[in-house]
Amino acid sequence: MPAFNPLVEKLSPPPVPSVFAWGRAYQGARGPLIDLSQAVPGYPAHPDMLRLLGETASSRVFTGYGPIEGEAELRHAYAEHVSQVYGANVGSENIHITSGCNQAFVCAAMTVAGPGNTVLMTEPFYFNHETTLAMMGIKTAFVACDAANGFLPDPARLEAAITGDVRALALVSPNNPTGAIYPPPLLDAVFRLCRQKGIWLILDETYRDFMPEAGKAPHGLFSLDGWEDTLISLYSFSKSFCIPGHRLGAITAGSTVVEQVAKIMDNLQICAPRAAQAAVARALPLLAGWREQNRQEIGRRADALKAVMRSLNDWKLDAIGAYFAFVRHPFRGVGSAEVAEKLAREAGIICIPGAYFGENQQDYLRFAFANADVPTIGLLEERLRNFALS
Amino acid sequence: MPAFNPLVEKLSPPPVPSVFAWGRAYQGARGPLIDLSQAVPGYPAHPDMLRLLGETASSRVFTGYGPIEGEAELRHAYAEHVSQVYGANVGSENIHITSGCNQAFVCAAMTVAGPGNTVLMTEPFYFNHETTLAMMGIKTAFVACDAANGFLPDPARLEAAITGDVRALALVSPNNPTGAIYPPPLLDAVFRLCRQKGIWLILDETYRDFMPEAGKAPHGLFSLDGWEDTLISLYSFSKSFCIPGHRLGAITAGSTVVEQVAKIMDNLQICAPRAAQAAVARALPLLAGWREQNRQEIGRRADALKAVMRSLNDWKLDAIGAYFAFVRHPFRGVGSAEVAEKLAREAGIICIPGAYFGENQQDYLRFAFANADVPTIGLLEERLRNFALS
Ligand SMILES: Cc1ncc(COP(=O)(O)O)c(C=O)c1O
Ligand SMILES: Cc1ncc(COP(=O)(O)O)c(C=O)c1O
Repeated sequence: MPAFNPLVEKLSPPPVPSVFAWGRAYQGARGPLIDLSQAVPGYPAHPDMLRLLGETASSRVFTGYGPIEGEAELRHAYAEHVSQVYGANVGSENIHITSGCNQAFVCAAMTVAGPGNTVLMTEPFYFNHETTLAMMGIKTAFVACDAANGFLPDPARLEAAITGDVRALALVSPNNPTGAIYPPPLLDAVFRLCRQKGIWLILDETYRDFMPEAGKAPHGLFSLDGWEDTLISLYSFSKSFCIPGHRLGAITAGSTVVEQVAKIMDNLQICAPRAAQAAVARALPLLAGWREQNRQEIGRRADALKAVMRSLNDWKLDAIGAYFAFVRHPFRGVGSAEVAEKLAREAGIICIPGAYFGENQQDYLRFAFANADVPTIGLLEERLRNFALS
Repeated sequence: MPAFNPLVEKLSPPPVPSVFAWGRAYQGARGPLIDLSQAVPGYPAHPDMLRLLGETASSRVFTGYGPIEGEAELRHAYAEHVSQVYGANVGSENIHITSGCNQAFVCAAMTVAGPGNTVLMTEPFYFNHETTLAMMGIKTAFVACDAANGFLPDPARLEAAITGDVRALALVSPNNPTGAIYPPPLLDAVFRLCRQKGIWLILDETYRDFMPEAGKAPHGLFSLDGWEDTLISLYSFSKSFCIPGHRLGAITAGSTVVEQVAKIMDNLQICAPRAAQAAVARALPLLAGWREQNRQEIGRRADALKAVMRSLNDWKLDAIGAYFAFVRHPFRGVGSAEVAEKLAREAGIICIPGAYFGENQQDYLRFAFANADVPTIGLLEERLRNFALS
């Protein structure tokens, strides 16, 4: 057999399916399986969302190829939405629709960096960002975020890490895996640093609809003069609308960035699936109230997890924010994958080992607590308390 | 503004939208605009297809993330279908579903070649193949296909071009842009050449459902021992089911290739859109008769175009096959883009300039004749006869 591309061959198999496999080995001794692994909302999509998806998918209007950049209707509705969320003035020409936010990251990274260039990331990192860059032959460099600092990046360390071959800094806020929400002044400082250094700031904001405070803009960057020459912001419709299976995300950036992305998207897949775009365009204003209720519900889930963790002595909640908690397990010196596998097989709790987000995160597990309702989160207390490594 | 990735920056803007722009400048003097540009079936999707798409899209079952490799239902149905079409024995483990065939090509190319490796192609080529490789930093080499040989590749020339840095040969049959259908013995010879040279054969078979002869296997390669170690076959559900807007394609390859592709797809977009996968799984057997009728209809359209071209002295039909015709225009020395632009603006015929498929194709225009019905194709005769470069 001829060789494979070594950049692809040396990637580990996708992590989420292997974690599910551990869960399937659980015999049920402690009660139902609790899935805190993949970041999928534990509540269903709204009936109106399903109705709209059905209407658009059964329509002849959306069967043909569509505009590469996205349906005009969705670009417009999303630009309005972004303008409102950030108190800014963003237009359709600043929006490129993609098949989910992983694809948005592929497009953003490829727009600014080629093989041999470097993209700077924080550690712990979202694993698909790391593997995406690796498979494209883009080098990565990492700035560690400390638990003591709430896993926020330190601008001085970032500055030191921006060497000549760094083309972009990729951040995730609210963060995956830690849940940490980067405060607006920190994002402002990081933006200015990137601008001063002449590099791009790629900001993945997949979880911004789940922040604890209502109606507060995640940052003020879209209002800064010349934001288009530094910022590329990414978003996912998967989590907020509970429709990851329909594959929709968005890039908000300068129109010249959008033009570059269109060239990439034409090759990657011509356009994002159209019917779902039209459905989401209509759902964006329609389901604003429902999304706000979900935000509040996820706040209650965070509170429930905090209460559970307070009652446990040896498990530590080192970070919790929108969607995720980064939990320090009590088994110092034991690898996080070993702990996570046993937790799945024996205690029926599936979560992602810290090491999947960086070799140095062996003491941690990522709990996607937003997946589980409050009573289910309550069940964690006893299961964790009684869990021992045999 | 910081720099863009030069591999992306130097790509031309996507060709199809610019061709549409020429069409919009047409004033209607010759009657309705005739669109022979993008390869989209000129007839609508079947009502049952739309019904199935609506049913699955409005179902809660498909809202979550799905298996990276594709829905089990579609992988199974498509494996059965491939087995039947080729008289071979292909299983679900040989199938990876993608968001269209452009994405299937991205995955196949990335699986076998990294930055700096070379992929060999034929010229004229499908432009997205060329731009996809270019943006990934994969080098390309070309083997010219001659009009005198019906635009079929010559195995001796291919052999001479397979130098040490070539990792794969990428072919398209039935061909885009020429329409040429590579005969099974030719594909067999090319397969053996690739195997002997230790390189991969990536075969894009997007148009295989539109071949002139009913029930004839496009090739016998899936029945050869060890086919999995050489062949990666690509397919699109866009054309055969008239649903490009729903973005579905497939890779048929060895299971070890499928494992590599899954790692890439997880980064590119996690999984293809799910509801449409379930709908197509059901439509595959259900709409077999309808697809056969369309095949026959496209045969009639080919006959209609042949009749038109026979009646014109100075326009030459150098190749015609499934879906496309490669037409030699009478304006020697004039660039194909200039001819195509005038043809659009003045005669209301939009088609793709030959040069978009390779700098040497300036004498040609690609007519996607399958887009137009027989009476519309009949209108071409007068319009072409009366067309002059002013
Ligand atoms: C930080 C981050 N970015 C992107 C994604 C991908 O989301 P999508 O479903 O839109 O591709 C995820 C999903 O888990 C994520 O956590
Ligand atoms: C040869 C070839 N491959 C791939 C594609 C892309 O098809 P899809 O819509 O499945 O991405 C096309 C579309 O025109 C094509 O002509």
